Amino acid sequence: MHLDGSTTDHSRLHDPSVRGFASDNYSGVHPEILAALAAANGGHQVSYGEDIYTARLQEVLEQQFGTGIECFPVFNGTGANVLSLQSLLPRWGAVICASTAHINMDENGAPERIGGMKLLQVPTEDGKLTPALIDREAWGWGDEHRAQPLVVSITQTTELGTCYTPEEVRAIADHVHAKGMKLHMDGARLANAAAHLDLPLRAFTRDAGVDILSFGGTKNGLLFGEVVVALNPEAAHGLKYLRKMNMQLASKMRFISAQFIALLDDGLWLRSAAHANAMAARLRAAVDQVDGVEPTQATESNGVFAILPEGVADRLRSQFAFYDWDAARREVRWMCSFDTTEEDIDAFVAAIRREVAAG
Amino acid sequence: MHLDGSTTDHSRLHDPSVRGFASDNYSGVHPEILAALAAANGGHQVSYGEDIYTARLQEVLEQQFGTGIECFPVFNGTGANVLSLQSLLPRWGAVICASTAHINMDENGAPERIGGMKLLQVPTEDGKLTPALIDREAWGWGDEHRAQPLVVSITQTTELGTCYTPEEVRAIADHVHAKGMKLHMDGARLANAAAHLDLPLRAFTRDAGVDILSFGGTKNGLLFGEVVVALNPEAAHGLKYLRKMNMQLASKMRFISAQFIALLDDGLWLRSAAHANAMAARLRAAVDQVDGVEPTQATESNGVFAILPEGVADRLRSQFAFYDWDAARREVRWMCSFDTTEEDIDAFVAAIRREVAAG
Amino acid sequence: MHLDGSTTDHSRLHDPSVRGFASDNYSGVHPEILAALAAANGGHQVSYGEDIYTARLQEVLEQQFGTGIECFPVFNGTGANVLSLQSLLPRWGAVICASTAHINMDENGAPERIGGMKLLQVPTEDGKLTPALIDREAWGWGDEHRAQPLVVSITQTTELGTCYTPEEVRAIADHVHAKGMKLHMDGARLANAAAHLDLPLRAFTRDAGVDILSFGGTKNGLLFGEVVVALNPEAAHGLKYLRKMNMQLASKMRFISAQFIALLDDGLWLRSAAHANAMAARLRAAVDQVDGVEPTQATESNGVFAILPEGVADRLRSQFAFYDWDAARREVRWMCSFDTTEEDIDAFVAAIRREVAAG
Amino acid sequence: MHLDGSTTDHSRLHDPSVRGFASDNYSGVHPEILAALAAANGGHQVSYGEDIYTARLQEVLEQQFGTGIECFPVFNGTGANVLSLQSLLPRWGAVICASTAHINMDENGAPERIGGMKLLQVPTEDGKLTPALIDREAWGWGDEHRAQPLVVSITQTTELGTCYTPEEVRAIADHVHAKGMKLHMDGARLANAAAHLDLPLRAFTRDAGVDILSFGGTKNGLLFGEVVVALNPEAAHGLKYLRKMNMQLASKMRFISAQFIALLDDGLWLRSAAHANAMAARLRAAVDQVDGVEPTQATESNGVFAILPEGVADRLRSQFAFYDWDAARREVRWMCSFDTTEEDIDAFVAAIRREVAAG
Repeated sequence: MHLDGSTTDHSRLHDPSVRGFASDNYSGVHPEILAALAAANGGHQVSYGEDIYTARLQEVLEQQFGTGIECFPVFNGTGANVLSLQSLLPRWGAVICASTAHINMDENGAPERIGGMKLLQVPTEDGKLTPALIDREAWGWGDEHRAQPLVVSITQTTELGTCYTPEEVRAIADHVHAKGMKLHMDGARLANAAAHLDLPLRAFTRDAGVDILSFGGTKNGLLFGEVVVALNPEAAHGLKYLRKMNMQLASKMRFISAQFIALLDDGLWLRSAAHANAMAARLRAAVDQVDGVEPTQATESNGVFAILPEGVADRLRSQFAFYDWDAARREVRWMCSFDTTEEDIDAFVAAIRREVAAG
Repeated sequence: MHLDGSTTDHSRLHDPSVRGFASDNYSGVHPEILAALAAANGGHQVSYGEDIYTARLQEVLEQQFGTGIECFPVFNGTGANVLSLQSLLPRWGAVICASTAHINMDENGAPERIGGMKLLQVPTEDGKLTPALIDREAWGWGDEHRAQPLVVSITQTTELGTCYTPEEVRAIADHVHAKGMKLHMDGARLANAAAHLDLPLRAFTRDAGVDILSFGGTKNGLLFGEVVVALNPEAAHGLKYLRKMNMQLASKMRFISAQFIALLDDGLWLRSAAHANAMAARLRAAVDQVDGVEPTQATESNGVFAILPEGVADRLRSQFAFYDWDAARREVRWMCSFDTTEEDIDAFVAAIRREVAAG
Repeated sequence: MHLDGSTTDHSRLHDPSVRGFASDNYSGVHPEILAALAAANGGHQVSYGEDIYTARLQEVLEQQFGTGIECFPVFNGTGANVLSLQSLLPRWGAVICASTAHINMDENGAPERIGGMKLLQVPTEDGKLTPALIDREAWGWGDEHRAQPLVVSITQTTELGTCYTPEEVRAIADHVHAKGMKLHMDGARLANAAAHLDLPLRAFTRDAGVDILSFGGTKNGLLFGEVVVALNPEAAHGLKYLRKMNMQLASKMRFISAQFIALLDDGLWLRSAAHANAMAARLRAAVDQVDGVEPTQATESNGVFAILPEGVADRLRSQFAFYDWDAARREVRWMCSFDTTEEDIDAFVAAIRREVAAG
Repeated sequence: MHLDGSTTDHSRLHDPSVRGFASDNYSGVHPEILAALAAANGGHQVSYGEDIYTARLQEVLEQQFGTGIECFPVFNGTGANVLSLQSLLPRWGAVICASTAHINMDENGAPERIGGMKLLQVPTEDGKLTPALIDREAWGWGDEHRAQPLVVSITQTTELGTCYTPEEVRAIADHVHAKGMKLHMDGARLANAAAHLDLPLRAFTRDAGVDILSFGGTKNGLLFGEVVVALNPEAAHGLKYLRKMNMQLASKMRFISAQFIALLDDGLWLRSAAHANAMAARLRAAVDQVDGVEPTQATESNGVFAILPEGVADRLRSQFAFYDWDAARREVRWMCSFDTTEEDIDAFVAAIRREVAAG
C-alpha cells in the first residue's frame, strides 16, 4: 500500500480512477498531505491546539499574512464562517452578503440559527459585492428595530467562479470601515484567487483591509480542515471560546495543523490551485468553441458556469458527475480540482461536443 | 516515510517516543487507521455522505447493533452529543445528566447555547446515574415554567472511569421510558466499556434500551471522527438537517467512514480498547501497593483516579503529562491509550513510588 | 379623573389633544378597554393564564373562529410572530415571506436569533405574496444544505396597507399545503382587513386555510396584548412551552384577556378598525385631488402611502408626526388610528395642500 | 364603574373579594396605578420608549438610584433577567446563581435557550449566595472547555423570602468584581427588601456594588411591567437592541413607564411592600404559636415558608389558594400581597389552627 493511492488494499471500496466535475470536495487528499499526516503521527501531543504543529502553523501563516495575526484551525467551512462572523459581531448584529453567498445558500441557516445573526442579502450579477451594492443594506444603525449591519462578508473566489481584484477588495474594505463595519472574507477557494491574480495571499486579504478570513483547505486537497485567520485580531473577539462552544475544536488538532503546514510550506497550495484553475481555463477555452454552450460567468478560478441546450445536461451527467446551478435556465456548474487531468478535460469536452451535436 | 511512524521526515516536528497519561486524545492515529485513510483516497467520491464508504459504514454498524439503525458520522464528540440530544428533544426540552457529565463540564455550554436545551444535573458518587438519582430531576412535566425533562444522558464509560453493567443501563432505560423520556448514551469511550464488560456493543446499548448513541472514535485511535448512531430511529428527528446546521457535516465524509470501517471491521476497536484498559489495570494494581496513593474510583476502563500526597503531583508532572481532576483534594486522573506500553506504565509507577517516597 | 381621558390629573404629562399620523401604536387605549381593565381588577385570580378571563377569551375567540382553536395571549406582535412560527417549524425550518414583512424588516432578527429560523424573502410589488412568488423560494426539500422551507408567512393587512381577499388567501393556503408547508398570518392589523373586506374574521383566516394567526390588539386600541390563535392546533406544537421560554407569558394574564374580551365581545374591534380605515380613505380621497402627491399603494386599510415633492415631507412633519417609508424616493407613510378624527384628517389635508403649493 | 374596583360592570367575571396566599401575582392592580394608566391615556405619544413618560421615568429612577443610570422598561421578569444577564455577558459567558434562583427554576430555560448562557448553580440553605458559595463555581477562566463564569446573579429578596443586608451584597460585589465578574440582582421583590431593611433602594443595590438590576413592578401592584436598571451602564452592553430582539420592547411603552412613575413618585412602592411584609410578619407570628407548623426560613419579606403536618396542606387548600414549595417534605409557601388584609391573615390563621388541630 502506498500513500499515492496505488494500493490494491482490499479495504479500498471505490475506483480511484473515476473523477468528475461535480465539486472540488469530491476529490480526495493530495499525497503530500497524506504524508504529512503520517509524519505528524506517533507519540503524544497536547490536544486541543497546544501542540507543536499548531504552534508551527501560526508561524507558517505569519509568513503568508505577516505578524500580528491569530489562527484558529477548525473542521469545516461552515464552521469557519460562523465563527469568523460571530467574532466580529455583537448579539444584535447583521451581515451584508451577496444573495449567492455560501453562508446564505448552503449552510442550512447555520449563521442565523447557531451564529444568531441576520443576513442582509443583496442580489448581484456575478457574485461580487461593490460599495454601491453594500449600501442597499448598509443603513439603520441605531434603530433597534433593524438588525444592525456591522459586518460585510465577501467570498473569494466567489461562488460563481469570479475573483475580486485587490483594488476591488480595498474599495470594499475602505467603504465598510468608513461606516464602522468589519470585513469578512470567505476564502474556501482563496488559493484559486491567488493563482488567478498571480499575487501573494496577503495582497488581496490583509493588505486590502480584510479583518478576518475563513481560509479553506478541504477544497484544495486536504483531508479536512479550514483555518480562521484573524488578520485584524483587535476586531475579532473570543475566537478561542467560540470555536469550542460551536463544536469546532478538534482534540487531535495537530492533524489539521500538519496538513496546513504541508499545504503552505513549500507552495503546494499554489501549485494545486493553479492546476485546478488551468484545467478550468482549458475547459472554458474548449467550450467557447462549442456552439450552443453559453458560458455565463468569467472563468477566474476552478469552475465553469454555462447554459446548455435542452437535454444535454442529463445525457452528459450519465457519463460525468456535475451539478445544475440554475436548473430553471439550464445553467450548470463544472468544477475542476487539484487532481483533474488534461485527459479528464479533453474527454469531457469531447462528450460535450458529442451531446450538443446530438442536440 | 512509513505509515507506522518510523519516518525521519523533516516535516515531523515532534518526538514520537514521548507518551504520557494526560488524555487518550493526546495519542495519535493507529497505523491501521492511517492505512485505511490512504486506501480510501484517490479518485472522486460523492461528498457529504453519499459516498460508498459511508454506505458501507452503515452495514458495518448494523453488524454491531443490528438492522434498523441509522448512522451519522460527525467531526467530534461535542458535536455528536449536541446532535444526539437535539434529535430527541423539542425546543422546550431538558436533559437529566450527572453533574460530572462531559456535556455539563467540558463543552462550554454547547448543549445549552447551540442545542438550546437545559441540563438538569444530579451529583453522583461515581459518575453513574440510577433511577433514584434520575428522579431527583424527573418531575414537572406539563408545567411550562420548568424546562421539560425529556431525555436522560449517561456516559459509558463514565468520566470517572466507571462502567455501567447492561443491567444498570436496562434499569435506567426502563425507568426513563416508563416516564416518557428517551435515553442518550455518550459513548466517547464505548469500546472501553465493551472490553471491560466482555460483551458485544449492542448488549449494553441497543439491547439495553438506549435510544441514541454518540459512538466515539477519536479517543480510540482515529485521526478524528465520531458517529451518531440512532439505535431507535423513531425517537430521533432530523439528524440529517441537524448535522448540517450544527456544522458537523464533513464534505469528504468518506474519510470519517473509512476510519470507522477499519476500526470496526476486524476488531481493532476492541483490541485497542482492551489494551488501554489493561494498561490502566496494570497501573491500578501497581499503585494499590503504594502507600499514600489513594485510588478514588473503580478502574473499569482506561483511567485511574487517585489522591496523591501533597507535592507529589507537581513533581511527577515534570516527568509525565497528566491532569488534576479535583485539585482541591489533590485528586489526579491518569489516562491510558491504545499506544500506552507496559514499559510506559512501569516507568510511571517507578516514578510514582519514587516521588511518594520522597514526599 | 375619568376613563375617557378628560382628566386634569397632575400625573398627566402630555397633551391628550395631540394626534398625528406616525403609527397606530402612537395612540393610546380605547376607553372601553380601560374600563374592562378596571372591571377585571380586584381580588385574586390564578396567574399565568389559569384565570377566568382567559377561559372566557377562549370562548369569545371560538365565536369568531369556530371551535377547535387554541389561544395564547402574549405581550407583543414580535412575540406573537416568533411563537407562531416556531410552533409550526422543526429546528431546521425556514419561512418564506415578503421582503417587506414585519418579521423581516422590523424585528431586529428575532425570528432568526430567538426563533432559530431562516427567512426566505421574496420581493413583491404590494407586500402580497402569491403562489408564484412563493415558488421562488419553495424548493430544496430534503437537501440538508438548504434551510427547509416549511412555513409561509403573510401579513393581513400588509405592511403596505394592502389587503388579501379570501380567495387570495385560499389560493396561497392550498398551494402551501399541497407542498407540505403551513401558513402563518401576521394579523397585527387583522381587524382592518375584516373592515375593508366586510367579512367575518374567519372568512379570510381559518376558512381560507390559515394554520396559525398572530391576532393583533395593540394597534387597535389595546393598552398592550396580542393573541396567538392556533386555527389548526394539530399543526402547532408546544405553544404553551414556547410562550414561557420566549418570555411572553404574562403573570397577570387576566388583563390581556379582559382587553380582548372587551375588544371582541360587542364589536369594538370592528368599529375601531372601520373608523381607522374610513379616516385613511378620507385622507386618500383628498390627496388624490392634490397634484404632486402620488399615492403608491391601494388604500385598503388604515394607511396611505405616497410620494411627495421635494421638501414637503420635512415641512409637514414640523406640524404632524409621520414617518418616511422609502426616503430615497420621497415616499411617506400616513397611518390612521381608532382615535383619528375627521377634523384631524381635514387639518392634515389642508397642510398638505399648503405645503405642496408652497413647493 | 370605578377604578377602585367597586364596579358592578357586567364585564366583571370574577369575585373581587376572593384573595389567597398563592402568589403576589394573583393580585391585581393597585387603584393608584390604574389611575395613572388612565392619566397617561389619550392623544398620541411616540411609541417604543421615545415618549414623555419614559423620559420622566428615567428622572424618577435617578431620584432612587442616582444619576448616571440607564433604564429599560420591559414586559416581565423573565425578560428583565435575560436581558440584564445578556447585557453583561459575551456569548461564551456563564452565570453563577443559587440553585433556587428563579432564573434556574422557573423560566423554562430562557436564560440558556434565549440568552445563550450557562447557569452554574450552587445549593444554598436559604437562597442566599456568599463569596464562599460563589467560589464553588468561580473558576476556570481562560479554559475554553468551561463556560466562562463572568456574572453572579442574586435575588433580593430571595425566592425563599430571605433578604440580603447591604453588607452582604457589598461583600459579594467586592468579591465578584475582584475576580473580574459582574453582579446582577433579580429584584422582582426589591421593594420588599427595602421595606424589610428600612433603607433606600440604592443602599443595597447601586451603593452596594450591583451592576444591573431587574426591578420588579408586577408583584408590587402593577398591571404588568418591570424595568431593567443599568446601575453601572459601562458594564451593560446593547440593552436597547437586546430588548427589541428579545421581544420585550413595548410599543405603547408610556403605559409601563406611567405605572412605574406612579409606583415610585410618592412612595406607593414602599407602602405596598411594607404592607405585604407586615401581613407576612403577622402570619408568621401567629403560626409560630401553632404546634405542628414548622417555619423553615426567616420571614424577611412577604412570604412564609413552613412544613405542615400530613394532610393539612390539602385541607387548607380547599379554602385558600397556596402552593407547595417542597412537597416531598410537606413544605408550603404562603405569599402576601399589597391587597392582603389583616382579616385575610386572621381567617387564614384560624383555618390553619383548625386543620392542624384536626390533623
